[in-house]
Amino acid sequence: MERAFIRLTRGVPPVETFPVARIRTCAEAVLAHDATTVLQYGKARGYPPLREILAEAADVDPERIVVGQGSLNLQDLCARMLLADGGLVYVEEPTYDRTLTLLRRAGAHAEGFPVADDGVDMEAVEDRLRGGDRPVFFYVIPDFQNPSGTVLPEPKRHRLVDLARRYGFWIVEDVPYRRLRYRGEDLPTLFDLAPDRVIQMVSYSKLICPGLRVGYAIAPEPLADRLAKTAEDAYINISYLNQAIVAEFIRRGWLEDQIAYLKDLYAPRLDAALAALEAHMADLATWHRPEGGFFLGITLNGGTPADRLLERAREAGLLLTDGRGFFVNGGGERFVRLPFCSLTPEEIHEGIARLASVVRTLTG
Amino acid sequence: MERAFIRLTRGVPPVETFPVARIRTCAEAVLAHDATTVLQYGKARGYPPLREILAEAADVDPERIVVGQGSLNLQDLCARMLLADGGLVYVEEPTYDRTLTLLRRAGAHAEGFPVADDGVDMEAVEDRLRGGDRPVFFYVIPDFQNPSGTVLPEPKRHRLVDLARRYGFWIVEDVPYRRLRYRGEDLPTLFDLAPDRVIQMVSYSKLICPGLRVGYAIAPEPLADRLAKTAEDAYINISYLNQAIVAEFIRRGWLEDQIAYLKDLYAPRLDAALAALEAHMADLATWHRPEGGFFLGITLNGGTPADRLLERAREAGLLLTDGRGFFVNGGGERFVRLPFCSLTPEEIHEGIARLASVVRTLTG
Repeated sequence: MERAFIRLTRGVPPVETFPVARIRTCAEAVLAHDATTVLQYGKARGYPPLREILAEAADVDPERIVVGQGSLNLQDLCARMLLADGGLVYVEEPTYDRTLTLLRRAGAHAEGFPVADDGVDMEAVEDRLRGGDRPVFFYVIPDFQNPSGTVLPEPKRHRLVDLARRYGFWIVEDVPYRRLRYRGEDLPTLFDLAPDRVIQMVSYSKLICPGLRVGYAIAPEPLADRLAKTAEDAYINISYLNQAIVAEFIRRGWLEDQIAYLKDLYAPRLDAALAALEAHMADLATWHRPEGGFFLGITLNGGTPADRLLERAREAGLLLTDGRGFFVNGGGERFVRLPFCSLTPEEIHEGIARLASVVRTLTG
Repeated sequence: MERAFIRLTRGVPPVETFPVARIRTCAEAVLAHDATTVLQYGKARGYPPLREILAEAADVDPERIVVGQGSLNLQDLCARMLLADGGLVYVEEPTYDRTLTLLRRAGAHAEGFPVADDGVDMEAVEDRLRGGDRPVFFYVIPDFQNPSGTVLPEPKRHRLVDLARRYGFWIVEDVPYRRLRYRGEDLPTLFDLAPDRVIQMVSYSKLICPGLRVGYAIAPEPLADRLAKTAEDAYINISYLNQAIVAEFIRRGWLEDQIAYLKDLYAPRLDAALAALEAHMADLATWHRPEGGFFLGITLNGGTPADRLLERAREAGLLLTDGRGFFVNGGGERFVRLPFCSLTPEEIHEGIARLASVVRTLTG
């Protein structure tokens, strides 16, 4: 009998969470009341009513908000703005694989700093800075990091922004998962600590749905205009229709409903993943215990011959993403990212059982 | 008494042409029948049902179609794909100002070839190629060129694709205005003549509305995959919601209705512009008489001190775009682009009367 594949590949939210009826209502409202604005060309910076809502919430001037198609697009604009002639970028290691691809395309040199349970190794960062290698920016996912699931502790946040000020680099803070905290307390964002040094990126892909392709950046004054101009030169503007749907969704209070619903759905999935790891993989790997987000990152114990892991997993009915993609300069053979949000607790248990069985076979 | 400004700046369609009720119907249909697909992440190449409609109409494999946010975004992707290390690009002169900005940002060298009433000077192009300066691609707007309004005659089309084959360069054919022909007969596109050499770009910004931000490229086999990968690396995918709305609009036969309606609206506006030029500017400028599109390009007679034209026009209640922006390496001081579609015949007459009066004052 064919077994269905269990997908532990990308961080894709489950379609059954999409608030379809509410998005329809928002689309209808927007096309009934603001059609000629949303269907015309617009300023690259984004749909003004959305920027006003976001600016008020963040207590910044709306001109500092630049709307993009999710955070990858905004990162791409940042890279084009700040790395026109290449340059050095610091990243956590492991980090978001698509960011590494993007930096490579931009001709940048990415330098990775290891992430432990308590986030990136700040000693290593400071040593490197003292050595004179100043990056253009540090790309960091401080909350429920992709792919490790870790949270950067508050003292390290202070230290990072201090370093950014002292050595004069920007911080690109990517927070697509921050609102998905299932337990524990929020820490201040890097942007909260240093709004003059941090470009913060927020995406609605994980909070409403990916297909609207809406996210935004809050940029320091001197960068916001340049960011918007970079966007204009690349595509004039992204669709205001989608931005207006998001604005309407927020205005009606539905974003908060949706986030509460997602937390209720995802928290047991995280718990299931942690329980399954404990049950099946305690002697095979180590992992961080996240309090939120989309991902659990596990590291297989030394001695696991990991080169045929993906292939063997596929034979066992389990699809994984290559761990090496999250590492800058080699490594990651024994790293496995587990995106737990789009599987039921039963599927998660089954998937992790299959993974354990594959790893056991490989280690013979 | 304040006079309202007359805007002859950018090629922006009038909002009253937007088929709002029909777009609402399409949005409702899409969100009723295909919500989970359009609200999820998707392949960068674009919404498959739209690509299938377009592929069938163009008689190509759907894999050769890559959907983007209008043609500027697609040009940007092409530049990133083909000009990673700079390179030489041929353009018509004058040409679309945003393309020149984009090429500059890409680090490319743009070489301009003069456009006359019968399109670009092919002798000059061939001379240059014989001299050994082979471009990566030739960016050309063969139908109702922006900003001159000219159409490339059929023999020159054949000659251009012959040269592309002989010297081994790509042609980027931008045809956002082609369907807006108010009289005369369509010529074959460059893509029709050489589908293996031409990346053709079509936009719905001028045919439905700009705000959906949907256009597409048909690329030769070896480039289509790379184009889609370039898009994926930059933003994963653009919104399928908007692409699905366009697909639904086409499927219902409404695109043809809309184009017929636009032609009926715009043809008298072109006639009004030509009549006004004849009435007010016969002794002040020369111009091409386009048979379609969005633009009339005029060249003020020699001896016009044009450096303060924009400022004086503004004082007279007329907003113009700087003609120099359409020229690659200087020139364009005496060039004025007149986008006639978004003004009524009365406004066009008044605008051109104001322009004539400003020019007369300047020439003293």
